[in-house]
Amino acid sequence: MNTVLNKKDFETKLRSMGSMYHIHHPFHIRMYEGKCTKEEIQGWVANRFYYQTSIPIKDAAIMSNNPPIDHRRKWITRIMDHDSTGGGIEAWLELGEAVGLKKENLISHKYLLPSVKFAVDAYINFAKQSSWREASMSSLTEMFAPQIHQQRLNTWPKHYPWIKTDGLRYFQKRLSEARRDVEHGLAITLEEFNTVELQNKACEILQFKLDILWTICDALYLAYELKRPPYFNIKDCNARKKIITG
Amino acid sequence: MNTVLNKKDFETKLRSMGSMYHIHHPFHIRMYEGKCTKEEIQGWVANRFYYQTSIPIKDAAIMSNNPPIDHRRKWITRIMDHDSTGGGIEAWLELGEAVGLKKENLISHKYLLPSVKFAVDAYINFAKQSSWREASMSSLTEMFAPQIHQQRLNTWPKHYPWIKTDGLRYFQKRLSEARRDVEHGLAITLEEFNTVELQNKACEILQFKLDILWTICDALYLAYELKRPPYFNIKDCNARKKIITG
Repeated sequence: MNTVLNKKDFETKLRSMGSMYHIHHPFHIRMYEGKCTKEEIQGWVANRFYYQTSIPIKDAAIMSNNPPIDHRRKWITRIMDHDSTGGGIEAWLELGEAVGLKKENLISHKYLLPSVKFAVDAYINFAKQSSWREASMSSLTEMFAPQIHQQRLNTWPKHYPWIKTDGLRYFQKRLSEARRDVEHGLAITLEEFNTVELQNKACEILQFKLDILWTICDALYLAYELKRPPYFNIKDCNARKKIITG
Repeated sequence: MNTVLNKKDFETKLRSMGSMYHIHHPFHIRMYEGKCTKEEIQGWVANRFYYQTSIPIKDAAIMSNNPPIDHRRKWITRIMDHDSTGGGIEAWLELGEAVGLKKENLISHKYLLPSVKFAVDAYINFAKQSSWREASMSSLTEMFAPQIHQQRLNTWPKHYPWIKTDGLRYFQKRLSEARRDVEHGLAITLEEFNTVELQNKACEILQFKLDILWTICDALYLAYELKRPPYFNIKDCNARKKIITG
């Protein structure tokens, strides 16, 4: 962009980047079309759990980078949403159980693919190493999240009747939380990113976050759909054997 | 491992992990068998350049984490090998020119794939956040490097006659440097990692580094061989258009 946008147009610009949200990744499309195998669903749930556990950690990193108190007072809700009793982490563990994964294998990240770890760690390190404004802004992919959660709620029970429906509590819970979080995150972004340079920077940051989510899907596509996890062609490779569910 | 190994057996164990070195990745195998297209070679050179630039940065991170002076006196050679006039970075830029890439596109990392960036940044962040012993140890994939460099020197001129051979100076240069670096890195590792727990930790670290190199090849395979770079299926996607050479 060469000229600064007013708040309305800047929001439109940010929302237009939803065309690159991972809802459009072929692995995701297969998932909501009911084409994923049980192993693929398990692989997704197990790998995505690493992302889930990273959310309150990156939120704590944001809060450690000296935002004003009124920002912290709102932002702390996010940590509680995930970490509290009955919160997001526990809801994801219930999802894990519903798709047939052992709790201890989720918690130990037994099935975590290296490429997913690198992508998620990039998110945490970004939150640690950037200003609270930039790191807060990076969470704005949640603008696109209610649609993806709703899609799962709409299609999974039909396509994957073997998954106990009370395992889907996480998606339900996030519908309202994500909407509230977007309101706060967007207000900060539209207020603070108010020059051409800053607005371009904001777009780069949102792109970075979109890249993370897309990369996670790429790793699952490679390991589960193409059956090419790391070292797939190496005989008797322990590092490979651990990595795939089932 | 359940019992501590003597130095000789521990070295044998570490060397055995070379079975997972990226020399065995199908993308690499295609490269030395002469099956890569010009675009694939360019994609590899451009993406690998990001790894090259990270080497002296991670070496500086290691030196910043308080190793003894005799370690620093040896380790600083590595920074000079890459950063000095005529050093590794410049040699890689010559390779870039030899394969037909514009220098400014290499330097700006125009073709850098997100997944490669995440993997390489994981290496830098590991060096920043770990002890100098652990971070030094992670460079030991250079035990396996002379073979891969020699393989390129042996096969590229025959298979890829369009690449000017003076562009291959980097590989020649690293043959002797990597051998000298291994001698130092291995001596430290065998000395310092001297309990069961530490030796298991060392194997984990070497695995982490092998994962990084394998992930880089996976990203190239996906983007160049399968023609599935990020957002490949999104119409008119600027983020995708930038990312592939040519």
